[in-house]
Amino acid sequence: MAADSQSQPITAGLLVIGDEILSGRTKDKNIGYIAEYLTNIGIDLKEVRVVADDEAAIVEALNALRHRHTYVFTTGGIGPTHDDITADCVAKAFGVPIDVDPRALAIMRERFKPEELNEARLRMARVPQGAELVANPYNKVPGFWIGNVIVMAGVPAIMQAMLDGVAPQLKTGVKMLSETVPANMREGDIGTELGRVAKRHPEAMIGSYPFWQPDGQPNTNLVIRSRSTEALQAARKDVEAMLAKVRAGR
Amino acid sequence: MAADSQSQPITAGLLVIGDEILSGRTKDKNIGYIAEYLTNIGIDLKEVRVVADDEAAIVEALNALRHRHTYVFTTGGIGPTHDDITADCVAKAFGVPIDVDPRALAIMRERFKPEELNEARLRMARVPQGAELVANPYNKVPGFWIGNVIVMAGVPAIMQAMLDGVAPQLKTGVKMLSETVPANMREGDIGTELGRVAKRHPEAMIGSYPFWQPDGQPNTNLVIRSRSTEALQAARKDVEAMLAKVRAGR
Repeated sequence: MAADSQSQPITAGLLVIGDEILSGRTKDKNIGYIAEYLTNIGIDLKEVRVVADDEAAIVEALNALRHRHTYVFTTGGIGPTHDDITADCVAKAFGVPIDVDPRALAIMRERFKPEELNEARLRMARVPQGAELVANPYNKVPGFWIGNVIVMAGVPAIMQAMLDGVAPQLKTGVKMLSETVPANMREGDIGTELGRVAKRHPEAMIGSYPFWQPDGQPNTNLVIRSRSTEALQAARKDVEAMLAKVRAGR
Repeated sequence: MAADSQSQPITAGLLVIGDEILSGRTKDKNIGYIAEYLTNIGIDLKEVRVVADDEAAIVEALNALRHRHTYVFTTGGIGPTHDDITADCVAKAFGVPIDVDPRALAIMRERFKPEELNEARLRMARVPQGAELVANPYNKVPGFWIGNVIVMAGVPAIMQAMLDGVAPQLKTGVKMLSETVPANMREGDIGTELGRVAKRHPEAMIGSYPFWQPDGQPNTNLVIRSRSTEALQAARKDVEAMLAKVRAGR
């Protein structure tokens, strides 16, 4: 991962593909994982979309995201059944042909016996023209990477293994730093003053997240984020001074 | 909830708003909950978007979703701090003014002592013109409903209470029925045949979901969905016959 402090922020979109997520039958676990992963390597996840196993919806979302972000990651829809249409949709979005890829086929031949390599499993070797394969150390069947779009499996363990393989090849920006200050007050007690602090620190982002303590008392975590250590610490100091002042005034 | 079997499917989009979801700091729990909830009352969730606390991103996503779906639900960004900008963005998307709403203010006065009703908390009484309030039995502070957009809190317990209050007022369609048939085979063993079954049953949707059993063996759940009991049962029968045939042929 090459971090270049002079470069623009590196951004990403995530496209989660699958009827089962939208019906609620499967509870997505990939959004939170990928969000945290990208943040940790200095890529800003800017937008997530979840769409059905529907060609028009997938192609449209993919084209919207890929023109806006440095990278687009997709999860789901690359298995062996009729509802696995992601690879074809990616080919369509890029306007390139798709066919069984000899490199993917070679990998599949290592994984499956000849009699297992039926029409369904051969679908998994279909890769849009011009794509590079994404290794799958979990169960071999590869994902792929075309243009700025990285196509991964939906099963979390497989997606995670693919992402580990891809990450070292990604351009990354300056990592977003983050510190959390518990306010020990309710959000509404400090909102006005916090807004003023936020305005004074445009180089930092300050988020406010209410929660209930285990004893049932309301509390608030203030999360300060910045790419600059100096800006982060200046904002933190200001937040802490504000908290002390509000506490003293109560 | 009025189900009308003659009507078009009732669809929904979901807009999840919050930097904390995209940074991975907070793992969203609302998408899966709302997806399952809407499915259960006969509303098809068609698309989910997650965007940052960013006016342009919120307004754009909201306008895209509200013109496509019967309803749009939003979660997050209606608290008392500077990063809570959802209400203002909704007003902007609809092109209507926003101000402190007397009905919301009356509710806030029941909840908070006069000295607690500061500038920050008054933000939570700002509601776009023409909106109806959405009750919040959890901690009073209301959401709102304008046009086809229903604006809810991001804290799961509050969102769930708001959704329970809104649900009886929603138009709902014929409920999607769903049955699961374990294949007791790997997905790739049946993919080809399953595709043929799916093609024969255009009134049913058949999804295929690989999983690992607790003993580590791969297995596949086939999920058959339809709004028609007859179509569902016909597809299920065909799926089961296919499974028996593939099993016998091994």
